[in-house]
Amino acid sequence: MAKKLVYYFGGKKADGKAEMKSLLGGKGANLAEMVNLRLPVPPGFTITTEVCTHFYKNNKKYPPELKKQVQLSLKRVEKELGVKFGDKNNPLLLSVRSGARASMPGMMDTILNLGLNDETVLGLIAKTGNERFAYDSYRRFVQMYGDVVMDLKPRTEDEQDPFEVLLQNKKNSKGITLDTDLTAQDLKELVQEFKAEIKNKLGKDFPENPEEQLWGAIGAVFSSWMNERAIVYRKLNNIPAEWGTAVNIQSMVFGNMGIESGTGVAFTRDAASGENIFYGEYLMDAQGEDVVAGIRTPLPISKLNEQNPVLYKQLDNIRIKLEKHYKDMQDLEFTIQQGKLYILQCRVGKRTGLAAARIAVDMVKEKLISEKEALLRVEADQLNQLLRPVFDMNEKRNAIKEGRLLTKGLNAGPGAATGQIYFNATDVVEAAERGEKVILVRIETSPEDIKGMNASEGILTSRGGMTSHAALVARQMGKVCVAGCSALEIDYAARTMRVEGNGTAVIREGEWISIDGTTGEVLEGKVNTKDSEILQVLLDGTMKPEESEYFRVYDQLMKWSDKFRRLKIRTNADQPDQCANAVAFGAEGIGLCRTEHMFFGGDRIDAVREMILADNKEEREAALEKIFPYQKEDFIGIFKEMGGRPVTVRTLDPPLHEFLPHSEIEQKDLAAKLGKTYEEVKAKVDSLHEFNPMMGHRGCRLGIVYPEITYMQARAILEAAAECIKQGLIVHPEIMIPLVGHYHELENQAKVVREAGNRVIKETGVNLDYLVGTMIEVPRAALTADQVAKYADFFSFGTNDLTQLAMGLSRDDSGKFLPYYVSSEILPYDPFVTIDSGVGELVKIAVEKGRSEKPKLKIGICGEHGGDPQTIGFCNSTGLDYVSCSPFRVPIARLAAARAALLSESRNGKPAARKKPAAKKLIKKTAKKKTRR
Amino acid sequence: MAKKLVYYFGGKKADGKAEMKSLLGGKGANLAEMVNLRLPVPPGFTITTEVCTHFYKNNKKYPPELKKQVQLSLKRVEKELGVKFGDKNNPLLLSVRSGARASMPGMMDTILNLGLNDETVLGLIAKTGNERFAYDSYRRFVQMYGDVVMDLKPRTEDEQDPFEVLLQNKKNSKGITLDTDLTAQDLKELVQEFKAEIKNKLGKDFPENPEEQLWGAIGAVFSSWMNERAIVYRKLNNIPAEWGTAVNIQSMVFGNMGIESGTGVAFTRDAASGENIFYGEYLMDAQGEDVVAGIRTPLPISKLNEQNPVLYKQLDNIRIKLEKHYKDMQDLEFTIQQGKLYILQCRVGKRTGLAAARIAVDMVKEKLISEKEALLRVEADQLNQLLRPVFDMNEKRNAIKEGRLLTKGLNAGPGAATGQIYFNATDVVEAAERGEKVILVRIETSPEDIKGMNASEGILTSRGGMTSHAALVARQMGKVCVAGCSALEIDYAARTMRVEGNGTAVIREGEWISIDGTTGEVLEGKVNTKDSEILQVLLDGTMKPEESEYFRVYDQLMKWSDKFRRLKIRTNADQPDQCANAVAFGAEGIGLCRTEHMFFGGDRIDAVREMILADNKEEREAALEKIFPYQKEDFIGIFKEMGGRPVTVRTLDPPLHEFLPHSEIEQKDLAAKLGKTYEEVKAKVDSLHEFNPMMGHRGCRLGIVYPEITYMQARAILEAAAECIKQGLIVHPEIMIPLVGHYHELENQAKVVREAGNRVIKETGVNLDYLVGTMIEVPRAALTADQVAKYADFFSFGTNDLTQLAMGLSRDDSGKFLPYYVSSEILPYDPFVTIDSGVGELVKIAVEKGRSEKPKLKIGICGEHGGDPQTIGFCNSTGLDYVSCSPFRVPIARLAAARAALLSESRNGKPAARKKPAAKKLIKKTAKKKTRR
Repeated sequence: MAKKLVYYFGGKKADGKAEMKSLLGGKGANLAEMVNLRLPVPPGFTITTEVCTHFYKNNKKYPPELKKQVQLSLKRVEKELGVKFGDKNNPLLLSVRSGARASMPGMMDTILNLGLNDETVLGLIAKTGNERFAYDSYRRFVQMYGDVVMDLKPRTEDEQDPFEVLLQNKKNSKGITLDTDLTAQDLKELVQEFKAEIKNKLGKDFPENPEEQLWGAIGAVFSSWMNERAIVYRKLNNIPAEWGTAVNIQSMVFGNMGIESGTGVAFTRDAASGENIFYGEYLMDAQGEDVVAGIRTPLPISKLNEQNPVLYKQLDNIRIKLEKHYKDMQDLEFTIQQGKLYILQCRVGKRTGLAAARIAVDMVKEKLISEKEALLRVEADQLNQLLRPVFDMNEKRNAIKEGRLLTKGLNAGPGAATGQIYFNATDVVEAAERGEKVILVRIETSPEDIKGMNASEGILTSRGGMTSHAALVARQMGKVCVAGCSALEIDYAARTMRVEGNGTAVIREGEWISIDGTTGEVLEGKVNTKDSEILQVLLDGTMKPEESEYFRVYDQLMKWSDKFRRLKIRTNADQPDQCANAVAFGAEGIGLCRTEHMFFGGDRIDAVREMILADNKEEREAALEKIFPYQKEDFIGIFKEMGGRPVTVRTLDPPLHEFLPHSEIEQKDLAAKLGKTYEEVKAKVDSLHEFNPMMGHRGCRLGIVYPEITYMQARAILEAAAECIKQGLIVHPEIMIPLVGHYHELENQAKVVREAGNRVIKETGVNLDYLVGTMIEVPRAALTADQVAKYADFFSFGTNDLTQLAMGLSRDDSGKFLPYYVSSEILPYDPFVTIDSGVGELVKIAVEKGRSEKPKLKIGICGEHGGDPQTIGFCNSTGLDYVSCSPFRVPIARLAAARAALLSESRNGKPAARKKPAAKKLIKKTAKKKTRR
Repeated sequence: MAKKLVYYFGGKKADGKAEMKSLLGGKGANLAEMVNLRLPVPPGFTITTEVCTHFYKNNKKYPPELKKQVQLSLKRVEKELGVKFGDKNNPLLLSVRSGARASMPGMMDTILNLGLNDETVLGLIAKTGNERFAYDSYRRFVQMYGDVVMDLKPRTEDEQDPFEVLLQNKKNSKGITLDTDLTAQDLKELVQEFKAEIKNKLGKDFPENPEEQLWGAIGAVFSSWMNERAIVYRKLNNIPAEWGTAVNIQSMVFGNMGIESGTGVAFTRDAASGENIFYGEYLMDAQGEDVVAGIRTPLPISKLNEQNPVLYKQLDNIRIKLEKHYKDMQDLEFTIQQGKLYILQCRVGKRTGLAAARIAVDMVKEKLISEKEALLRVEADQLNQLLRPVFDMNEKRNAIKEGRLLTKGLNAGPGAATGQIYFNATDVVEAAERGEKVILVRIETSPEDIKGMNASEGILTSRGGMTSHAALVARQMGKVCVAGCSALEIDYAARTMRVEGNGTAVIREGEWISIDGTTGEVLEGKVNTKDSEILQVLLDGTMKPEESEYFRVYDQLMKWSDKFRRLKIRTNADQPDQCANAVAFGAEGIGLCRTEHMFFGGDRIDAVREMILADNKEEREAALEKIFPYQKEDFIGIFKEMGGRPVTVRTLDPPLHEFLPHSEIEQKDLAAKLGKTYEEVKAKVDSLHEFNPMMGHRGCRLGIVYPEITYMQARAILEAAAECIKQGLIVHPEIMIPLVGHYHELENQAKVVREAGNRVIKETGVNLDYLVGTMIEVPRAALTADQVAKYADFFSFGTNDLTQLAMGLSRDDSGKFLPYYVSSEILPYDPFVTIDSGVGELVKIAVEKGRSEKPKLKIGICGEHGGDPQTIGFCNSTGLDYVSCSPFRVPIARLAAARAALLSESRNGKPAARKKPAAKKLIKKTAKKKTRR
């Protein structure tokens, strides 16, 4: 039997079902599912994604059996509807749409009204008795086919669409502004003008044969899988090219058959805020693309309840049925054809991070999903939107008072953004590369704008509704968006925008505006932003928890996250205020306290420089004695803020030359302060110059050559700890040695630390519990982790340096090639953001070898990767005990850790690797050892 | 039963034997073996190395059972000889000597004549009837015991030995110069003066009790295992501290019982040249240390044949017996006591590299050993001595004509050295650190001078013979040495030397001399050196093979090496003359041809700079077109020299800024040449600045961003190959991509190379066979070698960069801490000389993963480690196919590879990992692939 390449849907039972997304794509699978759910779906069939794969593997040829299967399915549609494809009396019209496994809205091509030609249009007229409708459909079809299949498109971003130009000319010649005012005759003429334009520009005829039209459309849809914007979108969303798209061929229903017809797009909840309300838009006497493309501004769905309460009720019931069935917010497309409702598509609805969080929390309350499912519904990075700045209310109020409120549009992507305006994607990308904050201003966005949208702070459009391209994509990207600002007049050629009724005042390319995606307001000039509600509750105290809906959602998600995650979350902080923030966000300890930041500022840096310029150990020790009290005070401040949570302090890491001044004036100044000559200071600075400082005299290499530095630091940490303990506090210091490559280095430095510890214990009489461990950031340490583990109470991966060394990639110098590497897919992503798989190999080796020596070795990560959800997933599956990230990433890390645990549970059918970090036991063991000394 | 801690030797059968070196040390085991061989050995016993280990593990305490076992053994000696320890009538006198598993000549302490005191000396007089001898022995014992056990030593290098001062005073007061002219009374007085000096300087008495003396001496010998010079020696010779030393306690025989007595040291062959002659020295009426310490200049052993042919014959028979028994050249100590011969020690004799090579080759001819054993007898680095420069004969002849021949001494360490003189070890080390070439000049050397000897080019002494400390150690170190230049008057205090009979002319510290260790000549000033005999035969053609004894030895060793080694040996060369040298030395291909060296010089660098400063691809390609013909010519030259051997060419590696001028003048000059402004050039240079250039925009990252560079280089290589093939030559180009970290990088560059290759094949019509492979020098590439191997025809480890990255260690910046790391044993050795074990882990991972993907993947090493014997051993056991090193290291690598194969065979009982490199098959496979393209 030939392989099944085509799946029919229609009647009472479809060939496919929702679970067959890989084969049928999301749209095809859901069309089948909706048929099975007995929803009113126009019949049709789906060509599988396997055909797409075959198409690209075989030089754009189809499997031989495809043609026949398509013909048979077409026959079934004809039979079900009692119509005939290409029939001049009762023609079947088709839509041809893409549909990949993952939703890629607007990225690929769609053809509607397929099957019309100069003959069948007469049949359509005969059948509907609506000549104007028939020629309008025909006009739309020729335009779409000419654009998508025949590729007659504007060639530059500033050029107008050739079909739109003809349409506009026609309207101008008739003195009308609305498409709906065009007569059947006008449209009939336009069809011929469009065809002539095609012939003129492309040198070939528009195909009259419906079968030729169909295969042209199928080919165009498959080809669009590899168009540039689809490739960009897949890269942004990690969708593999191998998945391919399906093609859905469906009988047409018409929203443009007059005022009893219409079309709409709706979400089962508010996709921007997450509120549980029916949320959508529709247009009467229109086809679907009118809504999505943003050419006409549609009506909110609530209006339908006024206009046609019966139909609204029917639609609302479908909404409830879909949510109950799919247990998730759905995005649906419907068409009303002469008073009869059809559902054309349903899929999981895209939403903002705010909405994702709120919907997930609410659906648990509504008993639709479990807590675990709720966590898996919110991408960790989406949580960022809850923490995103809003406008400073006072500033915004003042701006409004000053008359800077330009206009109001649709609040399509919540958040506050301020930036310089640019009018096309290319300019936006260039400006962003120059470091500008940019707002993309377009009449309407199209898939060609994706790159520019991604590079912008926010998007402002003058046309299109809440479900327009701009709104959909902005929400998905988490961008601020104000859409459909109809008072805005945008002139691409002049690169200006002005507000209707605002006199001659124009805003030019490069000038600042501010947009509020939560309210839809557009303001002239810069308006500063302030903390999100979450921060106002947690940190600023300017809001009470019960005042904020989003705090409720945040708090609930965090509680569930903490219930299911295995990884502990620590923070990287070296100032008491940073510690306070991190603790408010739920940090369970400090994973990395850098001591060098404490070395700068005021008198300290002088003492540090004196230490560096010392000629011998005695001078160096004298200078270190001056630094000691500062360091001790710093640690006391940190220990107090951390309230008994473990604190990992790294000993001095950067090369000493980083602390010295490099200009002649500063060097002379320093020489005078230290009673040295300028030449002496300069000579010392010069002698410390390094060719590759990243791999130079830094990290533990400093502490080994100058053990007195490590000794002073250990003493400061441990005296601070002793003092806090005397005050009745609990303190768990963990001293971390950086840049260890050979276990002898750790052995050496651990000995110095223990010597300082013994002195502090003896002098203070406080029985200190502390750990001595090491960064794993040199590949050699990872490769010999079993040896290193002998001398380590804990490991902490410094993945920044580990990445630099494992990949031989200087982060500071990689700007010349790393962007090219990522854009040309030599590297799948920036390895300084998400841990690289090769670097991951080293992490795995180190964990395995380290625990082979010490099965309960505590292991964490403190590089900047520690706040990256994908890396957190890796850390969870590799069996790490904790991740450490910047204070503001802590909530994201908590959620990411929970998601990682749940995903690994669902993969393995059981919780991941280690159940309980062995921290407590380790501390006890070390304490015992210490007593024996 | 108590553990056996003491092993007796004497009578007809010893407790021990030669195989028990770990337990008894080399000396103890050989003493036992000689007893078993029925050689005349004075009886005694050995305290095992296990006691030493116990001693250091237990705070310098002995095992409780030791005392009793020592007493019992002492009784056996007393019984065998009919004497009694501490007896005032017939006293037993003992020697107490160290003896570790590996020989450490002169590094540890020795006590002779132990058991003498004011009472037993009378018994010795009674027994021998020789009062002078008895007091001479007593004087020596007190001096030695005072020095070694009681630690009364000169405190600075320039200070005189306090006992020697007293001895000199005594001689001065008597108006005599020779020790032998001192009377019994003089010596008796000296004993009391020595004791008074001890009491005066140390505040304690010399011990009169023989038992106390014995345990003091045993303690001193064990303690000397940890003295500084022994520690340095062990480090230089890779001897683990855990081995410990044994202590040998042996009944004394006396070479200083008058003119019928004597003592000597001999080698069974010439330890300097390797010639098969009995070779040694003796002194009548002397004790052993007189010969070794170089205080008196001894007679050559051939003299003994004249003085006492019977005794000589007996000794020569023992020599032959020992060589037959041990099958190696032996170093033996003998004493003649009143006409009777005793053998005190025998061990494998230290020798120069020259001698090691010659003895090994000769002993095969004599059927004493096998070819394999011969190879294992010559350390690969020793071969260096055969290749070491000799003086330029004309220069030397002229120097002699000019009267610059100062004097002649003993040719104790062959080779030619020229350098500035310094008179103590500290000064030598400092001067060498300043970069000076230094010759150490000492009256005599002692173990304290080891560091200085190691840092010098050569050693010159005024006292001591061919077996003096200076001579022995110099030969072992492979240093040039002229010893026993008795005409030399050295003044440590004034830091000058003058030659007796040479008027007032003095040579001062820091002035140049030249010494010929092959002839013993000492010349004033600098005399330039020239190639060794091997090079004169192989490269210069100034000597015929049959004229050179050492060429015979070299050639034979190389033939055997080639017979047994598994690893191929290639060379790193990028100039035709380097290629010629390497081929003469036996290189089987080029492992690394750097293309960047070709970029410098004349017009080329201009074109290179033009390429770098190009504003766009077209300009860059135009500049590359100018470089192309130069590169092509270079490769033609190399292919011709390499005559069909494979040639691995690396594409451009260094960052582009290395090719640009950095001074303002040069930049202006360049700007003028290129028709650019100075500002443009400066801006470009500045924009190319990198913080960590080692990890910056270099290696394949250049070729990926600028594929036209790789394309030009590949085209130049392959067009050159095609041209050579057209001329009837065989060429195997292997194009190597540097700094690959991700397989996509190699995939990308291999594609560019293949494109160039296809063009050349098409344009020339030559069917080229070539490989495309990669350096493995980035840890990530090693960790993901299975992925990389998919795109690689071969791997070549760039261990320099791999070491830098794996250890996070910038070679150029490591000067501040790496020497300290090695000296304080944080690292066991310089990882840029011998491959580090952690880096080795990466190599193993890469080999394993690479071959898991391609079982026959050709793998080599082309870092500077490729010429290091220890690293070659690692490469052999890791299954590499070849090593590549500088041309002059090729012979050493050949030998090292053979030794590695033999050692691995003896470890595993079978030849190592891979039998045949799969090169040929791979080439065929690739060729086939190419045809399919």
